[in-house]
Amino acid sequence: MENFTFYSPTFFAFGKDTEKDAGKYVKRFGGTKVMIHYGGGSVVKSGLLDRVKKSLENEKIEYVELGGVKPNPRSGLVYEGIELCKKENIDFILAVGGGSVIDSSKAIAAGAVYDGDFWDFYSGKWIENALPIGTILTIAAAGSEGSPDSVITKEEGMFKRGASGNAIRPKFSILNPALTQTLPAYQTAAGVTDILAHLHERYLTNSKEVEVTDRLIEGLMLTMIHEGPRVIADPNNYDARANIMWAGMMAHNNAVGVGRSQDWNSHNIEHELSALYDCTHGAGLAVTMPAVFKYVYKHDVMRFAKLAVRVWGCQMDFDNPEATALAGIAALENYLKSIGMPGNFQELGAKKEDIPTLVKMLCYGDGRTGSISGFVTLNEEDCTKIYNLMV
Amino acid sequence: MENFTFYSPTFFAFGKDTEKDAGKYVKRFGGTKVMIHYGGGSVVKSGLLDRVKKSLENEKIEYVELGGVKPNPRSGLVYEGIELCKKENIDFILAVGGGSVIDSSKAIAAGAVYDGDFWDFYSGKWIENALPIGTILTIAAAGSEGSPDSVITKEEGMFKRGASGNAIRPKFSILNPALTQTLPAYQTAAGVTDILAHLHERYLTNSKEVEVTDRLIEGLMLTMIHEGPRVIADPNNYDARANIMWAGMMAHNNAVGVGRSQDWNSHNIEHELSALYDCTHGAGLAVTMPAVFKYVYKHDVMRFAKLAVRVWGCQMDFDNPEATALAGIAALENYLKSIGMPGNFQELGAKKEDIPTLVKMLCYGDGRTGSISGFVTLNEEDCTKIYNLMV
Repeated sequence: MENFTFYSPTFFAFGKDTEKDAGKYVKRFGGTKVMIHYGGGSVVKSGLLDRVKKSLENEKIEYVELGGVKPNPRSGLVYEGIELCKKENIDFILAVGGGSVIDSSKAIAAGAVYDGDFWDFYSGKWIENALPIGTILTIAAAGSEGSPDSVITKEEGMFKRGASGNAIRPKFSILNPALTQTLPAYQTAAGVTDILAHLHERYLTNSKEVEVTDRLIEGLMLTMIHEGPRVIADPNNYDARANIMWAGMMAHNNAVGVGRSQDWNSHNIEHELSALYDCTHGAGLAVTMPAVFKYVYKHDVMRFAKLAVRVWGCQMDFDNPEATALAGIAALENYLKSIGMPGNFQELGAKKEDIPTLVKMLCYGDGRTGSISGFVTLNEEDCTKIYNLMV
Repeated sequence: MENFTFYSPTFFAFGKDTEKDAGKYVKRFGGTKVMIHYGGGSVVKSGLLDRVKKSLENEKIEYVELGGVKPNPRSGLVYEGIELCKKENIDFILAVGGGSVIDSSKAIAAGAVYDGDFWDFYSGKWIENALPIGTILTIAAAGSEGSPDSVITKEEGMFKRGASGNAIRPKFSILNPALTQTLPAYQTAAGVTDILAHLHERYLTNSKEVEVTDRLIEGLMLTMIHEGPRVIADPNNYDARANIMWAGMMAHNNAVGVGRSQDWNSHNIEHELSALYDCTHGAGLAVTMPAVFKYVYKHDVMRFAKLAVRVWGCQMDFDNPEATALAGIAALENYLKSIGMPGNFQELGAKKEDIPTLVKMLCYGDGRTGSISGFVTLNEEDCTKIYNLMV
């Protein structure tokens, strides 16, 4: 195990009706003038936004609103949010929505207390300071509710990049599984896939002697495999949604990923797809992950065999561990199809002829110098082959 | 799953040589005058205490010392520590040791800012305020480095009781597995047993639909089962100790125990043993757990069968799940013996003739009214039978 530090000071309020305490928590964590940041129709139509405003009013907390966050959130609205925070002397940002809304809130929170261009943080600068953030989560997927990370797409060039810093970990996150019950099946499945991807990115490690985190990751994968089909079969299954929601947070606050190298190549390869086609991130991952794993599994056959045996219940082929490794990848592929996720470029809406563009953005975009690194370092040729496996 | 809140704001620094940063972390979390609290010989002899003092001196942080914490820490030293903190205007407590030292530090931290008797907190009062605490952990066992709990024995009457409150969660905890390499095998095994007990106390629940926490607990149990024998065979196995150390924290900061009812009857029943005989808590648990589980498994045969199959690798007997449940308990018993833990009263140094005294202390001590509650409510007769199963 490698040396590490771990710090996850977010206060979580989990369960039915917990959003009614939003105002109380904003107050507890020092907010006096709030920017409520959200996406579009659903939080308005469902009445959630009104309940949140009421909760702030009950605590006599002032607020302004900024809606309009889109999936794969864009830099344009971030600049707008930063301006608004400065103009209105906002001291707390309340994100009401999914990972896109939270990530946009984090970018605004960092940018609002920074003199330079907020994009500096998405080009490698660590975030040291930010306005405090609270979240009311409406989709179990990104794990942004408990993470120090944010992903934003820069409209100029359509680069999708990440930034990190403990300063953007939410002060509190309200997780009410019932708020996710209205999600369409496709979005629910994409969330399940994103959570599974966060677990795989951590599972694929070059570190040795990491049994405790291996076992924790496997436990969360097993949970997702069990609960995913249940919630697709019955969107109103509160308990399945609750298990998925806590698994989604635990998959990404990094308690199960400490002390080990991680991968993140699937995410990097997918980010170019959702940047170019504006597809759902989780759906892009469903197409990306099996292709990446088929391409890299030989780097550590036994790790893929372990995943196959422990998580997918495959029989270990002691004469041919490679067969077991591949059986595990096939099981993942079947699982993703079974919950309604796309399996190739066509189903995703991507085009074979764009592969050179995707590879160029991936390997050279925004300061990269010809490759991406993780479990395995992948150069242009590797990435081209991987995208071709998805066609 | 039940509604819950979860808050674990402790900063963890994990790995080799991390104790050299103790002064830096005290400073970061606002300490200017520190009480270093510790036990006896080992931290002095090993040079750890000197390294910690040097680290504080490097940051120009003043300190006083209070050593002498004993296993099953006592109220007497707590009162002394509270006096010292008040007299010396201490604003930070640095615990250097295992669970006993940390629990004693927590009691002092709460008592130092409270006008009444600190024992109030150990009689049911929630801890709202305390001096900030940091820890340098030397034994993986109690999980106190990441928990909001403390257990102290009141010398008058020898009651061993717990107190809780987010205010006593450590601000930081330094976890260097190498510091545990000098522990004798018996203490190491007792630590492994204590961690397994924290997991069992959470696993035995009456809540439904708690797959995510079931799977996380099982993952930590599997880790302990794998790593325990490795560290007993080779005390210098850093990696085995590292896996155990993170598992010990994760087992008890409650990330894997949220949203479900928990048991804690094994701990309650054991506490009377370590209070009366001053035996090692983990060793007491090794004798207690199998007896409790044999007595209560019929309350939920399928839960015990699940534990047997998923954690102990037992074959499910579909015609007779009870046989599977019992096979799991037998596997735990064998495991505990294999790492050198006692299996009965005699091996622990307890006496059959004390059972009435133990039961009286357990069921009526310090305000209880004839029973203890958890997975199953146990009255005097039940507790008598359970202690008799240990003879």
